Amino acid sequence: MIQATTQIRVRYGETDQMGYVYYGNYATYFEVARVELLRTNGITYKELEENGIMLPVLKLEVKYHKPVKYDDLLTVKTTVSKEPSITIDFDFEIYNEKNELLTTGFTSLVFIDMKRNRPTRATQNILDLFHKNN
Amino acid sequence: MIQATTQIRVRYGETDQMGYVYYGNYATYFEVARVELLRTNGITYKELEENGIMLPVLKLEVKYHKPVKYDDLLTVKTTVSKEPSITIDFDFEIYNEKNELLTTGFTSLVFIDMKRNRPTRATQNILDLFHKNN
Amino acid sequence: MIQATTQIRVRYGETDQMGYVYYGNYATYFEVARVELLRTNGITYKELEENGIMLPVLKLEVKYHKPVKYDDLLTVKTTVSKEPSITIDFDFEIYNEKNELLTTGFTSLVFIDMKRNRPTRATQNILDLFHKNN
Amino acid sequence: MIQATTQIRVRYGETDQMGYVYYGNYATYFEVARVELLRTNGITYKELEENGIMLPVLKLEVKYHKPVKYDDLLTVKTTVSKEPSITIDFDFEIYNEKNELLTTGFTSLVFIDMKRNRPTRATQNILDLFHKNN
Repeated sequence: MIQATTQIRVRYGETDQMGYVYYGNYATYFEVARVELLRTNGITYKELEENGIMLPVLKLEVKYHKPVKYDDLLTVKTTVSKEPSITIDFDFEIYNEKNELLTTGFTSLVFIDMKRNRPTRATQNILDLFHKNN
Repeated sequence: MIQATTQIRVRYGETDQMGYVYYGNYATYFEVARVELLRTNGITYKELEENGIMLPVLKLEVKYHKPVKYDDLLTVKTTVSKEPSITIDFDFEIYNEKNELLTTGFTSLVFIDMKRNRPTRATQNILDLFHKNN
Repeated sequence: MIQATTQIRVRYGETDQMGYVYYGNYATYFEVARVELLRTNGITYKELEENGIMLPVLKLEVKYHKPVKYDDLLTVKTTVSKEPSITIDFDFEIYNEKNELLTTGFTSLVFIDMKRNRPTRATQNILDLFHKNN
Repeated sequence: MIQATTQIRVRYGETDQMGYVYYGNYATYFEVARVELLRTNGITYKELEENGIMLPVLKLEVKYHKPVKYDDLLTVKTTVSKEPSITIDFDFEIYNEKNELLTTGFTSLVFIDMKRNRPTRATQNILDLFHKNN
């Protein structure tokens, strides 16, 4: 298992006229949270791409329990609970400063060998990270 | 059942450095498709809000089957197959100009009475629309 | 001179909690307007890139005269009044359905030869277009 | 004069297929930088709005000197050099980790009394801040 928490401040442009964060922008928070989970553990997504591996998203799920508002300081808890194979799955929980659960989400990404443009096995550094924490 | 199709041209700013549409931007395509499904049938979401009803999203699901690319002219097929109650569910299919299925998605929205800030029944014009087409 | 008008419907996600279009999103409207000015004249920006020429933006200016609102059907008038050289300049005016001028803007873009990653002369098809209309 | 620096990490969704940050997204960086300049000095924009003052943007200028790339850790230097009146002007400089100047920008915002929906004088706490630092 791999777990990490990241803090994100809601930007004005992420809200819509309802006064909440626009429902498509949570995907960005999940992206930031995934990338920071890796960075905390010494892996940068940027280097993965420079080494010829990219991770497009196959599936996204979001449940909007309570509205997220402008200037909220969010805590995103990210968990990888299943051993990565050709895909890697992330679960997300978004909390506000009162520790209320606002949003839950899930993304499944696939490892793509950019040269061959085909799915490939999880990189060794990510597998090692998963097993070290298991 | 209510069905409609909408065409959307992919904008440059919607792509990311992978060369595909960023995975969070499909939520916007679904929003446009929902709103145009209603407009085609004489209902504007803007007027719903002006009449005190708003429709925040409760749940979003997206499956990314094939990449969507810059300047693609997308056809989004939108279906409401279940009678709206306090919530209204939309299914989406995104096709390119070769009629390849690129993306499927689902959103569930809740009718909110803006004055009381509480869930409420589907508006009569939307129920009528559903039954007229059933 | 090259001129064209394009219609754009304001999306919900483009608004912010002020109830207006977020100030950064006008750049997207200008992008759509530039691309459609070219398309109307038989040139697609996508093909320019496929032929090794890209057009990053060097300068952006926006003046926000009146707020643009959700669901507004905008008319963007785009003008190229100066002969393109290494750069190409576009002026924009955004009108609503009442023909009120809401926004004016300007972008300057540079022709980049993608192989050499260096500035280059305007493509012949764009120069021809400019002179045909002059 | 008021000055502050803020750090911003470039998100994947902010890039486009050119491999740079999309030109409209710098407006967001300027928004974050303005808000953090105020927060550093004990003023939150959120509270301004809660107290009935909003600050829509009147004018935006951006000059793109060098491309900003994915995962860059940006330093935004923000300066208010002119005494705020009905408007407040901000100048921005964006640097990367090598201290290269990538982008310069300018925004002019207007103080709006939300109840009357009319321009109004700069708030006292912002004027005090300007004079304290002058």
